[in-house]
Amino acid sequence: MGDQNKHIIAEVAINSLIAQRKSPRAFSAEPVTQEELQTLFEAARWAASAMNEQPWRFIYATKENEEAYNRLLSCLAEPNQVWAKDAPVLMLTVAKTNYSGNNAPNSHAWHDIGLATANLVLQATELGLHAHMMGGYSATKAREVLGIPAGYEPVTMLAIGHIGDPEQLPEQLKARELAPRTRKPLEELVHEGVWQEK
Amino acid sequence: MGDQNKHIIAEVAINSLIAQRKSPRAFSAEPVTQEELQTLFEAARWAASAMNEQPWRFIYATKENEEAYNRLLSCLAEPNQVWAKDAPVLMLTVAKTNYSGNNAPNSHAWHDIGLATANLVLQATELGLHAHMMGGYSATKAREVLGIPAGYEPVTMLAIGHIGDPEQLPEQLKARELAPRTRKPLEELVHEGVWQEK
Repeated sequence: MGDQNKHIIAEVAINSLIAQRKSPRAFSAEPVTQEELQTLFEAARWAASAMNEQPWRFIYATKENEEAYNRLLSCLAEPNQVWAKDAPVLMLTVAKTNYSGNNAPNSHAWHDIGLATANLVLQATELGLHAHMMGGYSATKAREVLGIPAGYEPVTMLAIGHIGDPEQLPEQLKARELAPRTRKPLEELVHEGVWQEK
Repeated sequence: MGDQNKHIIAEVAINSLIAQRKSPRAFSAEPVTQEELQTLFEAARWAASAMNEQPWRFIYATKENEEAYNRLLSCLAEPNQVWAKDAPVLMLTVAKTNYSGNNAPNSHAWHDIGLATANLVLQATELGLHAHMMGGYSATKAREVLGIPAGYEPVTMLAIGHIGDPEQLPEQLKARELAPRTRKPLEELVHEGVWQEK
């Protein structure tokens, strides 16, 4: 196992960005530059999508824009606000629910937001940044305070920035921050040929 | 713009795997090894997911297992079968619809399959492989012939292998194979602070 995989115990060597990626709660105060943000969005933009619909939209705010930042922060569940308030960038991903061409429902919209967000997060890793995705937020509030129109759905929120010192976290979160990442074994996930009861 | 981005016209330099990734229709006969397959699944396994649920499952077949391969091939829409039949690996991603802990519906399951599949596809790119994701298949037939139980949903199919010669494709597909990849401009996708009418 090479150095690249020091953050996880991968069974076989994998891409170093995928191995390094994690979802921290401790973020430093160092800002994310506009150029870095543009690079994140550019990486997301080149994801694949069903019918090349590109159903992904992004709403973001940096700490420099305090009012907008606090608006996004207010959408997060309280347990996430506790630590996400330190991240220099907050973001919401939004899915266009129907195909632009024929207005049929796009059943793969959320899947494709996942593809684009994975690109964004791996690009963040390459820039020395980290991104923590969160399902713990109020989609209803986000829709209201951010003015998201019908035909679009809030999907996930992200906190993005440079990694901080675990010591800055409350005791309980500090323990989680330092715990190793865990995943199911491949045997549970992969079926050869047909579905097997596992 | 560096050499790494020769496959696309990215507005700023992005990760070379993200830039190189594309969805070919022409695949060569060269097999994908079991070790390569394991590396793809390992990369997928380390994706993030809501509550670390890891709702992703994968069913795959290689050409060596002709019966299983043809079973997966038969699930594809005919226009996809035309070219996907040459890929040495076919795969279906499957989502666990509810959280294992409390059986509540997992609204992020498809999103998280997207995160894992993006990892798999970028890992394929790193190994010199390509993966073409497809929504054009029969989920009903897949459920039936692959024996997918209640509580799980087919999400996308993939054709995976080494890139082939566009000349092996029917005329109409050859033109699509050689066309440049296109994406919406960032201005359409990114909203600073709040949603803006665009």
